[in-house]
Amino acid sequence: MAGGIGVDAGAKGAADVPEIGVGMLGYAFMGKAHANGYKTLSYMAWPPPLRPRLVSIAGRDESAVAEAATRYGFERYVTDWREQVADPDVQLFDNGGPNNLHAEPTIAAAEAGKHVFCEKPLGRTAGESHEMWRRVGATGVKHMTAFNYRFVPAVRLAREMLEAGELGDVLHFRGRYLQEWGTTTADAWRFHKDDAGSGALGDLGAHVIDLARYLVGEISSVSASMRTFMDGREVDDAFEAVVDFESRALGTIEATRFAAGRKNAFSWEINGTKGSLAFDLERLNELHHSDGTKGFRTILVSEADHPFWEWWWPHGHMIGWEHSFVHEIHHLLTAIAGDGDVAPHGATFEDGYRAAEVCDAIVRSSESGRREDVLFRGA
Amino acid sequence: MAGGIGVDAGAKGAADVPEIGVGMLGYAFMGKAHANGYKTLSYMAWPPPLRPRLVSIAGRDESAVAEAATRYGFERYVTDWREQVADPDVQLFDNGGPNNLHAEPTIAAAEAGKHVFCEKPLGRTAGESHEMWRRVGATGVKHMTAFNYRFVPAVRLAREMLEAGELGDVLHFRGRYLQEWGTTTADAWRFHKDDAGSGALGDLGAHVIDLARYLVGEISSVSASMRTFMDGREVDDAFEAVVDFESRALGTIEATRFAAGRKNAFSWEINGTKGSLAFDLERLNELHHSDGTKGFRTILVSEADHPFWEWWWPHGHMIGWEHSFVHEIHHLLTAIAGDGDVAPHGATFEDGYRAAEVCDAIVRSSESGRREDVLFRGA
Amino acid sequence: MAGGIGVDAGAKGAADVPEIGVGMLGYAFMGKAHANGYKTLSYMAWPPPLRPRLVSIAGRDESAVAEAATRYGFERYVTDWREQVADPDVQLFDNGGPNNLHAEPTIAAAEAGKHVFCEKPLGRTAGESHEMWRRVGATGVKHMTAFNYRFVPAVRLAREMLEAGELGDVLHFRGRYLQEWGTTTADAWRFHKDDAGSGALGDLGAHVIDLARYLVGEISSVSASMRTFMDGREVDDAFEAVVDFESRALGTIEATRFAAGRKNAFSWEINGTKGSLAFDLERLNELHHSDGTKGFRTILVSEADHPFWEWWWPHGHMIGWEHSFVHEIHHLLTAIAGDGDVAPHGATFEDGYRAAEVCDAIVRSSESGRREDVLFRGA
Amino acid sequence: MAGGIGVDAGAKGAADVPEIGVGMLGYAFMGKAHANGYKTLSYMAWPPPLRPRLVSIAGRDESAVAEAATRYGFERYVTDWREQVADPDVQLFDNGGPNNLHAEPTIAAAEAGKHVFCEKPLGRTAGESHEMWRRVGATGVKHMTAFNYRFVPAVRLAREMLEAGELGDVLHFRGRYLQEWGTTTADAWRFHKDDAGSGALGDLGAHVIDLARYLVGEISSVSASMRTFMDGREVDDAFEAVVDFESRALGTIEATRFAAGRKNAFSWEINGTKGSLAFDLERLNELHHSDGTKGFRTILVSEADHPFWEWWWPHGHMIGWEHSFVHEIHHLLTAIAGDGDVAPHGATFEDGYRAAEVCDAIVRSSESGRREDVLFRGA
Repeated sequence: MAGGIGVDAGAKGAADVPEIGVGMLGYAFMGKAHANGYKTLSYMAWPPPLRPRLVSIAGRDESAVAEAATRYGFERYVTDWREQVADPDVQLFDNGGPNNLHAEPTIAAAEAGKHVFCEKPLGRTAGESHEMWRRVGATGVKHMTAFNYRFVPAVRLAREMLEAGELGDVLHFRGRYLQEWGTTTADAWRFHKDDAGSGALGDLGAHVIDLARYLVGEISSVSASMRTFMDGREVDDAFEAVVDFESRALGTIEATRFAAGRKNAFSWEINGTKGSLAFDLERLNELHHSDGTKGFRTILVSEADHPFWEWWWPHGHMIGWEHSFVHEIHHLLTAIAGDGDVAPHGATFEDGYRAAEVCDAIVRSSESGRREDVLFRGA
Repeated sequence: MAGGIGVDAGAKGAADVPEIGVGMLGYAFMGKAHANGYKTLSYMAWPPPLRPRLVSIAGRDESAVAEAATRYGFERYVTDWREQVADPDVQLFDNGGPNNLHAEPTIAAAEAGKHVFCEKPLGRTAGESHEMWRRVGATGVKHMTAFNYRFVPAVRLAREMLEAGELGDVLHFRGRYLQEWGTTTADAWRFHKDDAGSGALGDLGAHVIDLARYLVGEISSVSASMRTFMDGREVDDAFEAVVDFESRALGTIEATRFAAGRKNAFSWEINGTKGSLAFDLERLNELHHSDGTKGFRTILVSEADHPFWEWWWPHGHMIGWEHSFVHEIHHLLTAIAGDGDVAPHGATFEDGYRAAEVCDAIVRSSESGRREDVLFRGA
Repeated sequence: MAGGIGVDAGAKGAADVPEIGVGMLGYAFMGKAHANGYKTLSYMAWPPPLRPRLVSIAGRDESAVAEAATRYGFERYVTDWREQVADPDVQLFDNGGPNNLHAEPTIAAAEAGKHVFCEKPLGRTAGESHEMWRRVGATGVKHMTAFNYRFVPAVRLAREMLEAGELGDVLHFRGRYLQEWGTTTADAWRFHKDDAGSGALGDLGAHVIDLARYLVGEISSVSASMRTFMDGREVDDAFEAVVDFESRALGTIEATRFAAGRKNAFSWEINGTKGSLAFDLERLNELHHSDGTKGFRTILVSEADHPFWEWWWPHGHMIGWEHSFVHEIHHLLTAIAGDGDVAPHGATFEDGYRAAEVCDAIVRSSESGRREDVLFRGA
Repeated sequence: MAGGIGVDAGAKGAADVPEIGVGMLGYAFMGKAHANGYKTLSYMAWPPPLRPRLVSIAGRDESAVAEAATRYGFERYVTDWREQVADPDVQLFDNGGPNNLHAEPTIAAAEAGKHVFCEKPLGRTAGESHEMWRRVGATGVKHMTAFNYRFVPAVRLAREMLEAGELGDVLHFRGRYLQEWGTTTADAWRFHKDDAGSGALGDLGAHVIDLARYLVGEISSVSASMRTFMDGREVDDAFEAVVDFESRALGTIEATRFAAGRKNAFSWEINGTKGSLAFDLERLNELHHSDGTKGFRTILVSEADHPFWEWWWPHGHMIGWEHSFVHEIHHLLTAIAGDGDVAPHGATFEDGYRAAEVCDAIVRSSESGRREDVLFRGA
């Protein structure tokens, strides 16, 4: 063997970082995004708060889950998530499965003492979401709902500017999530009410609602209309809502899967007494800011003092959508390691539940034709 | 006298174009814009359908109206609009006065046999607007409400594309009119309920409503909330509304005077089954178009075959906001000359009334907390 | 006659403003733009420095020039510009004819004691331009070359910011003028060397050169290549030049008629030690500014304290390309009225000549393959 | 132990993919970017052409390189790259060190039979670059210069559109690379001539030159000026060049480190007889395309059939700058695995050399004041 010093001898810092065993449910779009998060944070956000050990991945299709395990470097795979719940090597249960597999496995994992990370929407209804929050909250484990857009650097920067009072009092929030693929005639679990709970509302609208709450505050009432444009589809394709916040702020929340030409256009604008902010996920590294009456400046969110940017590149070398998961999982691991709480920057299961109550109020308003109060229950 | 041939001898075409005597009420912002319209169309849209003769301008402040008459080239001024109504030289009464001076002078002028052109909002309420439509309509004169944004070339192009079916069936309309000057503590007639009728609703929202109707179709119901942010102000500073169209289209209409950094941001987006369009008045010469799933193309509306462009410049030499009035008044004169109707491209008083009914439904919905049907009465 | 007070009685301010008789050569694109300038400034920039009296318009096609006279309101037309030179009613000779008709009529008019305003490029070569400057300069009349882009509000604002030191020392200027219509197979005087002098160079490049000089300073040398893409065309279709300024600033100047999709894309960027500015004529009301290392802010040039804006509309109501001529002619009339000089904001014939020397140096460099000094001669 | 099936049993595809041992020189900016590339492609571009085994990382600062080895998962570290050259476990030598460490280690590694991947600029001069190409080329190993921007999806898409003839014949290429950090007074190897060879030219300009060659073709001559704005700095801060291509295309290449507000603004535009393309690295997922005379469409490069996109996310979920390295290293591993050549999509050492010759011609032209031919020598 040629020269060279083995890393065990030299690896001072790393030896001190404990491992955390991860069991993941799901290997499709979200499984890939989460797996990439664990793997990337381990060296990019250096040193990591905990070293993820990819213990186990679960899925019903054995050959597919076996390949996913190999691909992402999980030690083993299972075809029944109950094995992960029973697995002592798993300390964190990461649920990236379809919406109808959120509640039962997540609650079971938490009640088995595992920290839990669950994709959004938390449950298919406010009731299911409340149950998840209540029972998981009672266990004392850390819990986080995967509202990953809170971890886009531009969104965090917006939050910091709002907290610092740079916008004054917020008067308006306008958030839209526009996609175009609802025209597909292909079938998918996202179109079935039992599996998904709702359509554009839970899939896209929940993200808008969560950022509205994260950036502006609690929503008190909604006035909404929903539409299903595709014949025979069980879930909504679009909704529009006027939202009244507990503060005097007033706004709109909109989502559709029928906006031709809009690929992933989650855009929002906030107007305050001292300035405004605007964002569009299709240009996720840009934050547009007006301070008072002057026009909008484009902040290319990539400076050394911008959120999360100490881990990345010289300014102007933009990062991708997938790194919101790197930041998000890093945040969760930091909390699990005992160095801070999931809230306020991470969405807890309470946040997941509260977003679901706003969703339910939108459904009620669409049906009743009335402005509906958002009803929050305690745990 | 030096050489040269007097234009009377040479002016073949012009000799055939009859004059139309114009009496204008108001000499402030809208008076200036309308006067510029009459003067510019006379040579830019050549030959004009009628040659405007600027007969008389009315205002209460004698020295100001006298200066305005000189400035814009009116033959005389009056301090009482009743003189214009009685003036046989006036065939077209152009009302650019404040909202509380819309109904009485305009009705009187029409009943005296003059064609009428009135700034928006038509009346301060749906009731007042209906009265204007009913009484003016009964006289048989031509009537047009000054919804000038119908005459922005990009808006007309959008209408033509929609009529040609390029967008398929419209599913969504989202219109916003954002300004920032509501923070002023100065007084103005626009802040008084008696003078203005409403605030952002009638001033900005009416424009959005009119384009929604012009581009997409009739609105059947609205769900809305309004706000007055400035203490002591009599009128609304902002509103947000969900709008259900008579077709299955669904959308939002929003306006505010409290969007820091937004100067005159009247933007709208339309999504149809075959494509999308987007527009922003701050870049009024651009129309953004997606045909199906492909991304948005920026159409610089300035080609020889674009609406109104035969009167202007080589492509890429952009025109200004004020030329919407040139196009609009040209349209009205064409109708008066007998070469077409005000509708569908011009907003008749019926259109002015219908926009007012949508405004009233927004007020009712904000107060009742219910989705309110828009109620249209016959003339 | 109905009521009303004739404007003669009330016209206080206007009676004090003397007239100036205008004789215009040319009635095509530039004639239309200049005529609109005279007519619009008379009431928009109120009170005007002088009241333009449209005395006479010249052209070779009698029926066309007769119609133009009627259309724009000239008192008479002539088919020989010499009549205008002899006409005592003409005090300002406005030359918007093709390039081969710039020198002789303009010099004759100046030598007859008339102020002169000439379209760009001043002459077809530096020599011809120098002759125009020398002979016109000797007469003592006011002279201005129609580099109208100096009078775009965003350009004047840029100049003011540069003068105020907001950008520090300028290090770079990059200017491009891209159009697409060179692909036409139609004939035009602009494609003939005798008529036009050059192609993209004098037509488009001269504008870039003039703004480089206006905003940054004198160009000392150029390194350039030119191309004629269309077989058989006599003039250049495109050129590219590196420009060294007399200061240490370094830059590029480019123009082409073969940039598909670019309608009128005259864009420039200036980088200084303290900030940067960027502009694009296709969005002529926007100036993009970075102060130091922060990102670019979009200034919608339409505030009450922005250049020329006291004459126009509330902010956000954008003006068009054609109003650069309103501002430009107003500037000239102000100088003629004795209230200031044409320089530095207006381009004198010396500026027209100096731009031509830069053009000539570009031609020499393209042919010699050397960096060529720009050679300026005295008057 | 809980249930679950170990991945060895299930890992069908992976077992067939051979490993390749990687030795990397450098652990700073480029080391981090390359390491991320190896790690990410291993699961994202599934199955990978070869499985990277991170054998060894080299650096002079032992504690720093030891930490880097731990961080990125290298098996061992060395403080002398000669150990990597001698290491039989290393089959690919990846040189991300400073420019003065490019030639000797890379040549030595190749002559020891290792494939080589070297950061740009290849050598500090055309001579050094030629020596690298000549000697490495003679060994028969695979060699690639790290012009990673060829592997931005929008750039590859542009190349594909050009190859398919969608732009017709290319007439213009305009490329700029603008940064702002040259104002720093901190010292760095990039400012020393011995270490870096040149300044903005080799660091930024080389990227522009490489894409000009990749997208348009060979450059035949250049006319250039260079500047060093910072007193006492040994290398250039900026240059401007007119470039004549072997085809009739004409263009400019520019770079500066003194463009305030420009973070990483590598933008280019190509005009052809049938259309145009435009790109800006600050929005690296967008390609702007005009087909003929119509305006520019924004292609959000993220569709399933876009280059490299089969490995990533649903459309509209944008990837970051760092993934250009994932694509680039994947391309190299594919070539090493025997499934294709480095050229034409990867930049070989010949490409690295040719870019260096263009850089040298720019230096010569700046000094001579002449248009200088680019001189290419054979291997």
